[in-house]
Amino acid sequence: MVKILYIVGIGSGEKFLTKEAEEILNKVDLIVCYSGYKKYVEKYNKPIFTTGMKKEIERVKKALEEAKDKDVALVSTGDPTIYGLASLAYELNKDNIKIEVIPGVTACSIASSLLGAVINHDFVVLSLSDHLTPLNLIIKRFKLALEGDFIICLYNPIGKKRKKPFLEVVELLKDKNLVIGIVKNAGRENEEKKIINSKELVKNLDFYLDYIDMNTILLIGNSKTKIIDGKMVTPRGYLEKYSI
Amino acid sequence: MVKILYIVGIGSGEKFLTKEAEEILNKVDLIVCYSGYKKYVEKYNKPIFTTGMKKEIERVKKALEEAKDKDVALVSTGDPTIYGLASLAYELNKDNIKIEVIPGVTACSIASSLLGAVINHDFVVLSLSDHLTPLNLIIKRFKLALEGDFIICLYNPIGKKRKKPFLEVVELLKDKNLVIGIVKNAGRENEEKKIINSKELVKNLDFYLDYIDMNTILLIGNSKTKIIDGKMVTPRGYLEKYSI
Repeated sequence: MVKILYIVGIGSGEKFLTKEAEEILNKVDLIVCYSGYKKYVEKYNKPIFTTGMKKEIERVKKALEEAKDKDVALVSTGDPTIYGLASLAYELNKDNIKIEVIPGVTACSIASSLLGAVINHDFVVLSLSDHLTPLNLIIKRFKLALEGDFIICLYNPIGKKRKKPFLEVVELLKDKNLVIGIVKNAGRENEEKKIINSKELVKNLDFYLDYIDMNTILLIGNSKTKIIDGKMVTPRGYLEKYSI
Repeated sequence: MVKILYIVGIGSGEKFLTKEAEEILNKVDLIVCYSGYKKYVEKYNKPIFTTGMKKEIERVKKALEEAKDKDVALVSTGDPTIYGLASLAYELNKDNIKIEVIPGVTACSIASSLLGAVINHDFVVLSLSDHLTPLNLIIKRFKLALEGDFIICLYNPIGKKRKKPFLEVVELLKDKNLVIGIVKNAGRENEEKKIINSKELVKNLDFYLDYIDMNTILLIGNSKTKIIDGKMVTPRGYLEKYSI
């Protein structure tokens, strides 16, 4: 029988797993993932192969190699095609391994729900990591997103050794007055959230530089995003349309 | 006991349901949804209240009213904060009903996985429906998305009586050469997909005007999106970075 490399999104790792993803994790012969995510897949009682940060190519190569004679699940948190390893697997697939991607709930959906209903209009998903993308392109995209009054979801806002892209973004928010939601460890045990606005972010920048990390997602509202009973809500436009 | 209005995303309606969503649909007293989605929730054997298209306000009001003394699930396909009714529920919640939003897998994640790994870099999510958003704002956002070389996910590309926003978008694609993925009924029984490029879209516009409908999602690649063995793949940048 043809073996398959499944690239599986597991949502936050603890909540919001799809039934499809669970079925596949229960049936494969091997799970391959980032070492930090091992804790999320141990319950399936499968052999697990892990590599660390910045060892993504090695991880994907191993998954493809093993899929020659095993069903393998290469696991991402969130959705595997949103900053995950799905495209790299296609790029490295020299032996015509059959690949199937299983979508998952991405972090901005989880964060949006936790905060209220943030991404309820047109939005931009942008990673602030300049490890693989030039900083000037990231900043160009952020400026265009602001210009378009999009809601903006920032993935990977700050790294241990990387604060510069975030600082440039804050600079661009100086003259704005936008609601900002910050969610740490979305959907996980130690989940935390804050709803602030851009003025507060600029004013207490040192605190937020320390508070925000790689497991944080920032959602910047559009000009119509507001706070209703402590929730961050972007109107879809029904009430304006029907003048209620 | 306090009753809750759950706003629940059920993914495509047939696949990719989360375990959390299933649990809630099994425990509530009433399900409220769009009449076209009734078929996806009948299996839970609950009373179901539906309203038709453009009766969203009525639907949300009914859900809030019923949640005074029942646990209610207001169901969206995809993710309820992505063009769903979550924000409207917060806006209409005058009686302090407790609201919980349960995120789901959104259509662009499903379409991206089906086509390959399309949204594997920064992307824009844009609805072409001008029912609640002025057409000039939609087109402004589309232009900015192109300028930023974002991947662009177009929701609601064409309606029965609405082709103009799509025609304006096609006009802006005339000088481009971008890979485009078209997915109809993503994750459902009658799922269809095509991978073309913008030249083909412009050339055979009449065919696509007829083919694309409200259950279709279009994913327009960025300048680096390519076709690998029939799959639409946007590189994350690993291979460029490590010059493999």
